[in-house]
Amino acid sequence: MSRLDSFIRRLEAQRACLNQAAALITDVPGNVLEFGLGNGRTYDHLREKLSRRDIYVFERKVAAHPDCIPPDDRLFLGDFLESLPMAIRRLGQDTALANLDIGSGDEAASQQLARAMTPFVLQLLKPRGILISDQPIADSALEALPLPTGIKPGRYFLHRRR
Amino acid sequence: MSRLDSFIRRLEAQRACLNQAAALITDVPGNVLEFGLGNGRTYDHLREKLSRRDIYVFERKVAAHPDCIPPDDRLFLGDFLESLPMAIRRLGQDTALANLDIGSGDEAASQQLARAMTPFVLQLLKPRGILISDQPIADSALEALPLPTGIKPGRYFLHRRR
Repeated sequence: MSRLDSFIRRLEAQRACLNQAAALITDVPGNVLEFGLGNGRTYDHLREKLSRRDIYVFERKVAAHPDCIPPDDRLFLGDFLESLPMAIRRLGQDTALANLDIGSGDEAASQQLARAMTPFVLQLLKPRGILISDQPIADSALEALPLPTGIKPGRYFLHRRR
Repeated sequence: MSRLDSFIRRLEAQRACLNQAAALITDVPGNVLEFGLGNGRTYDHLREKLSRRDIYVFERKVAAHPDCIPPDDRLFLGDFLESLPMAIRRLGQDTALANLDIGSGDEAASQQLARAMTPFVLQLLKPRGILISDQPIADSALEALPLPTGIKPGRYFLHRRR
């Protein structure tokens, strides 16, 4: 499989997870959190699928397409671990979907970041809320859900808050 | 359609064009030219599909994944219009497939570059050789071929040298 094949497969897997998560929260009111804006494609997809939801974005440094930059009052700029406590104070536990797209290429550092973020994210995520992550996450408050068909285990992780 | 959808569709279209072109040159011996290395995904795909061919890459400045950087003697580094005459002297008319992935975001400049490159590329491309381009190209030496099924017209351009 070429890198082009592999990249397409990864994007299709990401889209399938986002679509499945969007379907899973139909009966769960609440906001959406996007960790890692990147070029903004995922944000744009969530914005389209979940157009009635408030979507808050966490990003170290915005470098997205101009059409995919969230309004100032929906953007938590800076280090995730610094902005998460602020988000908890401001938003409370009202999140229906959180998407952690935080892998940086340094696998150990990315997994460590996911572990450090998890307790904070769980203060935001409502019961029955969905967590998508590109890093493995384990917490007794989270139930692992099966991935959409055709996605290689370990590529993404889907959880529901008990 | 979200930017994520649109991006996936563009990559799938690109892959379909590459695969179709690879099939079309089965009976046309010769080398392969890749204009624009980028992250190297397309190069990797061509390398996999056409593993017995010599693949030469033209790139202004290499910024690809380390696994996708061609050997020094297969790389024409610098401005396309400066390296093309060198390539003609070195390779002659022995190209079975040329892939122009040169769009820069500035549509007018990209189209102008494609027009300026065409006469040089035609000195490399053999009769029955295939030209894929992300920019419109018109020349009486080239016959436009239908795109693979499902690709939006204007997204890619496929030509065969008469």
